[in-house]
Amino acid sequence: MTKHMFLKAATGVAFLLSASTALKADVVPVSDDTRETAAMLRDKALKSDAAYEILESLTTEVGPRLGGSEKEAEAARWAVAKLKALGFDKVYTEPVTVSKWERISESASVVAPYTQPLSITALGKSAATPEGGITAEIVHIPTYEALLEADPADIEGKIVFISNRMERFKTGAGYGPAVQARGKGAAEAARKGAKAIIIRSIGTDSHRLPHTGGVNYEEGTPPIAAAALSNPDADLLERMLDRGKPISIHVDVQTKFHGDVTMHNVIGEITGREKPEEVILMGSHLDSWDLGTGAIDDGAGVAITVAAADMIQDLTKERPRRTLRVVLFASEELGLIGAKQYAEAHKDDVANHVIGAESDFGAGPVWALASKVSTGSVHVVDTMAQLMQPLGVVRHGREAGGGPDVGQMVKIGMPGIDLMQDGTDYFDLHHTADDTLDKVDPEALKQNVAAWVVFAYIAAEWPGDFR
Amino acid sequence: MTKHMFLKAATGVAFLLSASTALKADVVPVSDDTRETAAMLRDKALKSDAAYEILESLTTEVGPRLGGSEKEAEAARWAVAKLKALGFDKVYTEPVTVSKWERISESASVVAPYTQPLSITALGKSAATPEGGITAEIVHIPTYEALLEADPADIEGKIVFISNRMERFKTGAGYGPAVQARGKGAAEAARKGAKAIIIRSIGTDSHRLPHTGGVNYEEGTPPIAAAALSNPDADLLERMLDRGKPISIHVDVQTKFHGDVTMHNVIGEITGREKPEEVILMGSHLDSWDLGTGAIDDGAGVAITVAAADMIQDLTKERPRRTLRVVLFASEELGLIGAKQYAEAHKDDVANHVIGAESDFGAGPVWALASKVSTGSVHVVDTMAQLMQPLGVVRHGREAGGGPDVGQMVKIGMPGIDLMQDGTDYFDLHHTADDTLDKVDPEALKQNVAAWVVFAYIAAEWPGDFR
Repeated sequence: MTKHMFLKAATGVAFLLSASTALKADVVPVSDDTRETAAMLRDKALKSDAAYEILESLTTEVGPRLGGSEKEAEAARWAVAKLKALGFDKVYTEPVTVSKWERISESASVVAPYTQPLSITALGKSAATPEGGITAEIVHIPTYEALLEADPADIEGKIVFISNRMERFKTGAGYGPAVQARGKGAAEAARKGAKAIIIRSIGTDSHRLPHTGGVNYEEGTPPIAAAALSNPDADLLERMLDRGKPISIHVDVQTKFHGDVTMHNVIGEITGREKPEEVILMGSHLDSWDLGTGAIDDGAGVAITVAAADMIQDLTKERPRRTLRVVLFASEELGLIGAKQYAEAHKDDVANHVIGAESDFGAGPVWALASKVSTGSVHVVDTMAQLMQPLGVVRHGREAGGGPDVGQMVKIGMPGIDLMQDGTDYFDLHHTADDTLDKVDPEALKQNVAAWVVFAYIAAEWPGDFR
Repeated sequence: MTKHMFLKAATGVAFLLSASTALKADVVPVSDDTRETAAMLRDKALKSDAAYEILESLTTEVGPRLGGSEKEAEAARWAVAKLKALGFDKVYTEPVTVSKWERISESASVVAPYTQPLSITALGKSAATPEGGITAEIVHIPTYEALLEADPADIEGKIVFISNRMERFKTGAGYGPAVQARGKGAAEAARKGAKAIIIRSIGTDSHRLPHTGGVNYEEGTPPIAAAALSNPDADLLERMLDRGKPISIHVDVQTKFHGDVTMHNVIGEITGREKPEEVILMGSHLDSWDLGTGAIDDGAGVAITVAAADMIQDLTKERPRRTLRVVLFASEELGLIGAKQYAEAHKDDVANHVIGAESDFGAGPVWALASKVSTGSVHVVDTMAQLMQPLGVVRHGREAGGGPDVGQMVKIGMPGIDLMQDGTDYFDLHHTADDTLDKVDPEALKQNVAAWVVFAYIAAEWPGDFR
């Protein structure tokens, strides 16, 4: 039985250290040399503009890059060129099959008893309304759970409006409960006979920039148009509804499905000097939603992971023991498409995936480190956390999931690390037109790279096993 | 010669008190009863939701109300009904002739050497591009002054991009210098052969919500399309330009001019008990730009002035000596149209306009009081300031202008007061889609009414003369 000791980190946040393993004789230590190199890399990262320059390049020269679109293909070409220019040992792509969806136009307005335009955006993969749009009374449903319980007689022929408001948390914990309305609301509304569904944006801001995001339909129910209102527009509708009169709105959403196209996961490697077949998986996603330029979602992750791997090849005397594999996943926003196909393609090679992590939570600073590793390697993650302590990072007790993309490999047995970022403001911008470079704090980006380079270097250099 | 004495207000800001006049034997004092009633009204205002309720009604039931549009006419009907419902003694309208302009559509994108959509809005009264839009290289001009000096050979056939960034100040002092590019840039660019002009939004935020606002053409130069980019889009263009390659963009702005229509200034009066022909003019404007719901510009002003006048009729034993005249001006945004026609219509009656003030700077708290009044009435304004001191208001030494609308009467001789508001955040929202009710702090709105009711009551009740 493992005996846990709770220590108090310098920052005042409790973290969990598996003290007993650190005492075992057969545990493989992290050498002083490895610690010193990791600390040197960390300090260099805090002075480097490399990640910001990568992000500036992606958002300026490519910009929006919706999964399945020609812009995603352009982003993949940009990424291959960038990784080659940085001197990665191997740069290659793996094909990904994506069902292409296109946003054509979207508009909405209140037509009775008041007349006002509404700021909406079609949810990703939304069906279209009939051409010219539809006009119907709205039925106000506070939450997805309330929709599940609603009487179909109250829904039939109407436009469902779900008004639930996402709460703000550092961890983004408000997203999960609120996002049900976006992902599953359309199918449930359709099942009950709704003509369309509009939801309050799943976001924490108060700007007239609605948040898109994927919607899922179900077989057997008609795919109805699904759109999000900006938070101020949802407030407006609620105020109108408070007056007790029936409210009719017009919604016109035009979208198009093009069938399957081939996109690519883009992969860059720094080849290991001793065990090149063993990989440290560093993931982020290259696609973005089409509204913004994907600066925080997930240009930041691309920049952080690429810059961290690049620093290790540039700044160490020799390649680390294992291979660093940076995977820029395709079409994440459309349902983890690139990541699922990567996991499927590499499932027989999972044993060579030593450990993985993902950067896909914006550009806020890393504040905690969580892990899902073997008992005998917990002390290595503790060492990483110690080295990240000057960055304000604490050890977190939760089990790591590995992130949405890399988590596909964690699910089938790969150990995982979560470099948890401060997401307090992330959902102000997430999936909106406002996801642009000016929202990224260059200093926070450096701090991310500094944390990542500690993780990546130690994971690749430490001779023991996380599995 | 007047001897001035500088006193230190409780808040630590110096204010100017004309001490000599306070000592003169023939000066008309502000009675204790008047002071007490003003203080009572002030304290009541701080507990009243009346202004917020008016603003909520206007933004919810009417919303955007562009000058010259059917929505402005609807707003006028709303205002007449509201003033009548509140029990104003007289409610009437005066016709205003407005040249009607309509926004139809607007879009822009970078087409070479990169491809990205740009978030733009047509400036108010902008000409249209040819149908289908135009594509041309952009020429980057930092400021309006640089455009004045530019060689026409560098402008001819291109789209001018003026990138100047508005600075943030409490007083809004950054607006004047920056707005030249919006008001006069199109005429100058056209004179030099430009095909269109796009400017960085005249605003202090960083959201993808461009700021509209009026553009002025000149006779003899072709009216070219004029649009504003959001600040993040202007940043993007600047980053692209930094790469040193020619940048081509496509701009499609469709607008329509409809000729003259008749709108109305809406007027509500609380009739004076002793000198009903003498009026205290309380101004704001009823129209808004079409992008937002005109909550801060100028629904707040409407709510503040109406609520303040209404409190006086509700909460005083008898009507004050003079008439309180609340004027909700028409089509201010299109060039002070309602205010200019009011001044023209009432120019022979200027002697009966005892004093005036305007609320048209958002919903931030009043922090200072400036005046342009006769020497013998400066002490009355000082008394107003003293009564506003618990609200955080200080006496300001600058000469009052009376605001853009009411200032039309001040120009022809009416004394004026400025209740100066904190505009630190005003230009984050000004003329954007984001000008919505959620941006208004109900407590700050109450503070405004409290300051206004002190001004209005004392101005109407004090038996002396400001002229």
